Order: sequence, then C-alpha cells, then structure tokens
Amino acid sequence: MGRVTERRRVTRIRGGAVSARPDTLVAEEPMEIRLNGRPLAVTMRTPGDDFALATGFLVSEGVLARAEDVRTVVYCAGATDDGSNTYNVVDVKLAPHVVLPDITLERNVYTTSSCGLCGKASLDAVRTTARFPIADTPPVRVSPALLSALPERLRAAQKVFDRTGGLHAAALFSEDGELLDVREDVGRHNAVDKLVGRALREDLLPLDRAVLLVSGRASFELAQKAVMAGIPVLAAVSAPSSLAVDLAAETGLTLVGFLRGADMNVYAGEHRLAL
Amino acid sequence: MGRVTERRRVTRIRGGAVSARPDTLVAEEPMEIRLNGRPLAVTMRTPGDDFALATGFLVSEGVLARAEDVRTVVYCAGATDDGSNTYNVVDVKLAPHVVLPDITLERNVYTTSSCGLCGKASLDAVRTTARFPIADTPPVRVSPALLSALPERLRAAQKVFDRTGGLHAAALFSEDGELLDVREDVGRHNAVDKLVGRALREDLLPLDRAVLLVSGRASFELAQKAVMAGIPVLAAVSAPSSLAVDLAAETGLTLVGFLRGADMNVYAGEHRLAL
Repeated sequence: MGRVTERRRVTRIRGGAVSARPDTLVAEEPMEIRLNGRPLAVTMRTPGDDFALATGFLVSEGVLARAEDVRTVVYCAGATDDGSNTYNVVDVKLAPHVVLPDITLERNVYTTSSCGLCGKASLDAVRTTARFPIADTPPVRVSPALLSALPERLRAAQKVFDRTGGLHAAALFSEDGELLDVREDVGRHNAVDKLVGRALREDLLPLDRAVLLVSGRASFELAQKAVMAGIPVLAAVSAPSSLAVDLAAETGLTLVGFLRGADMNVYAGEHRLAL
Repeated sequence: MGRVTERRRVTRIRGGAVSARPDTLVAEEPMEIRLNGRPLAVTMRTPGDDFALATGFLVSEGVLARAEDVRTVVYCAGATDDGSNTYNVVDVKLAPHVVLPDITLERNVYTTSSCGLCGKASLDAVRTTARFPIADTPPVRVSPALLSALPERLRAAQKVFDRTGGLHAAALFSEDGELLDVREDVGRHNAVDKLVGRALREDLLPLDRAVLLVSGRASFELAQKAVMAGIPVLAAVSAPSSLAVDLAAETGLTLVGFLRGADMNVYAGEHRLAL
C-alpha cells in the first residue's frame, strides 16, 4: 500500500533553535467496513492489512469464526466522481451458511453514501460543518517557552485524582498559559468533549483565545474537535497523525506535537508561534 | 458520581515477590448519547461530566454552538427491569430553533433498545456472542520471566518501520514466548483486529495457546477482542480499565497490566501464571 507513513514539513524547535525539515508521520485514513454490501462501521486506521482489519473486526463482533465463513473480501470500487478506487471501503461477503446478524440493523456505526470515502472527504466534512471558522483577531501568539510550561501544569492538575495510570487528560489554557479547565477520561476524545461541553454551558464558544493540550497523540478526531470548538492552538505531548496535520493546515489550526521540555514540533499554523 | 475510579484486587509481582492487594482502576462504562430521544452514539467513557460529554460531542458534530441551542439534558431513566437509572444514557433535547441534522439518520453509531445500558450489559453481550469460550486445555501456563521478555521483543519488531512515534502495536506470542505476528496502527483496536483477521484467514481461530500483548492500555474493547478470538492471556504495558478487568474475570481471560521489566500486575486469571 505504501501509505503506512507520510512525509510532511515540520518546524522543529530544539532548545531554542528553530529549523524546518521533513518529518515522517503515521498515516491515518478512514476505512468503511461493509457487510454483504451494507455499510457497518467506519474506523480511522493506518492503511495496510485492510482485509484483515475488516475480517478481524467481524470476529470481534461475533460474525466470523472460521476462514470458510468468508466468501470474498474486496475493495469497493468505482463510486468516486472520477471512477477511481480510494482503497478505503472494504466489503466482506459472507458464505451462504453464515447467518447475517442483527448487527447490520442495530449497530450502524458511521455510514457514507459512496465508495469515495477518503481523507480528503473527512477534511471537507469538517470544513463544511464548522460553525466557528478559526478567526482569532488579532491572532493568538504563544511563545515556545509558554507552551513548554503547559504539560507540567497539566500533570500537576492531574495528580489530584489520577491514581490509576489509566486516564487520558485534556486541558484548556488561556493564551497567557493560565489553566482554565482540565478533564480526565479513559478516552482522550471524551476528555476533550467534556471540556467543550462545559464551555458550551457557559456560552464560551468559540474558544478563540484558548490553547488545547492533550496527553498522548493528536489524531484527526482530536484536531476535528479543536476546529469545531474554534480553538486556534492544539498541542500534544506525543505524535500527530498525517490527517490531523492535513486538517490543521486546511483550517488554519496551529498544531504542535512532541511537546517535551523545551522541544516541540510545529506541524501547521506556525504564525501563532512567537519565534 | 463517585465512579471515576474503582477498586479491584490485584496480584502484584515486583522483582519476583508476589503479593495480593487492592488496586485503584480507572472506571470505564458505556454511555449512550441520544438526540431528541433518538439514539445517536455510544462511547466507552469514565463516568462524570456526562452532560458535558454529550453536549461537547454534539459541538464536535456541528449540532450545537451556543448554550441556548440546548433545551434540556437529562439521564434517561426507568427502562431497566427494576426501574432503576443506570446513569449511562443521556438525552439532549434541542431548542426549537435548532435544525435537527441529518446526523440522526446517517450516523447512528451504536444503538441500544433500552435505557438499561451499563457495564454489566456490555459484559453479557460479549459472553453471549463469544464463539470460542476460553477453553485452553491444558491451561496455558506462562512465567513472569517469559512475560517480562515480551515488550522488548515487541519493540524490536516495531523498530522496522515505526519512525513516527505515532503507532500503536499489538503482537501475538506463543506460550513459549515466540513472536507469531505483530501489527501496528494509529488505533490500538485496529492493530488487534488486523492480527485476528490474519489468523482467521489461516484458520487459526481460536488462538487458544496465544498471548496477546498491546502497547499502552487495556480497555474493555481490547479485552473483548481477545475473548472473541479465544485468546487466553492479554498483557498490556500500561493500565487496564475497570470494565476490562471485569470482563476478564467473567470470561476466564488472564489480564496482565503495567508489564514493565520484571514487574507486572495480574488482574484476573492468575491460574495461568506460573508463580
């Protein structure tokens, strides 16, 4: 497939020194799993082993148990405007002896109308539904030193009740580095939803002067949540995915990754960094 | 709510010394989000801030943007057999001026038939759909020393193509510690699905002599995937959730967490550990 990793330009900050260079990112693309032609689930995944991903998912759902339960596994082709195959829609056809489970009726996860599912479509979907185009006027400006201080503030706030090692955290900071709110959850996306939901209740949306910090990695889904809440800066302690970087670049979101001590990588929206 | 963490008994192994003690785990429970009474999505989350989670999710989906867009947010009550409220189903009713989006038609994520959604129901669902009850006869027996060696083997196999820092990994090992297969993905659940799908193709299910190792944490979903593939031992480098431990205990799965050097915690299925 050749899409397990992708290259993007990144601004590296190492102990105050700034350089621009290409960086290797993990590829992230949506994949739709169909069962006998009917859309069943969409998962954000790294391309490769897609047929195994689809059939393994169906083992977990109790549909498949033996190789002979599968009649065919194919990429659904030809429904894009130009007739090309996105290799992002996989159809599993069951052998005649396998009873089609209720799952197809009860557990639709996400559905799409065509075989054209791709990263670009995911980016377009966010752009067209965004209620708060990122429009921080004047632009938020944050220094690397300010960003460097945030993870420790997050950890200090977390210590209050994380005795489990199993919690992801997300925090909102002001552009001056003041901690506004922190939420923890077994799911990182939930922690961000909780922050945004609390802000909504206070009618603080768009959060157009805020910095969102997340423990761990920055996926497309987290970048989407930042964009939808009008947040101009997303910083992650670990790596971003290719699609998160693409979404940031398209929407004007500043995306910082590998935020560790005085070091960080800036993947998009460098104009908000006071370098 | 008081359910952010839960206590479970754990067998601790520290440098060869074995002790039993209570441990604090992050709580994980399913939550269903309803929009105007219609099921929209189910997420596994840590209880707490549930109304914010529901409304924040709807901001990310482009449904809500201002506090006045929300008419009411309530727990859906009374549909369990005993009439009790599980506090796991949240209904968001929109203000009259908000246009109900297509999302309710197109993007059902998971749906359930009642308000009784709870961790127990999730456990029952796995148990009733499991095609391969864990029945390793004679039981797989692994030593702490064998388990201790696995993370390094996983990392060595990973080095081949992880230059991104953004990949999760999952690996299958034989009961002798031999690496059978390793998959990487931006999503940990995808990496496990890919392993299981490849095993299905070779008609190797149930994987009743295998050890599954995952980078990071052990959630309910990962434990479910192990159980559904008939895998008797799941080991994670980081923390398990409460519901993952409960599922392991109910199904007979051996669940090891915080596998670091010679240290580890055994949360269920201790009989497979040669202590």
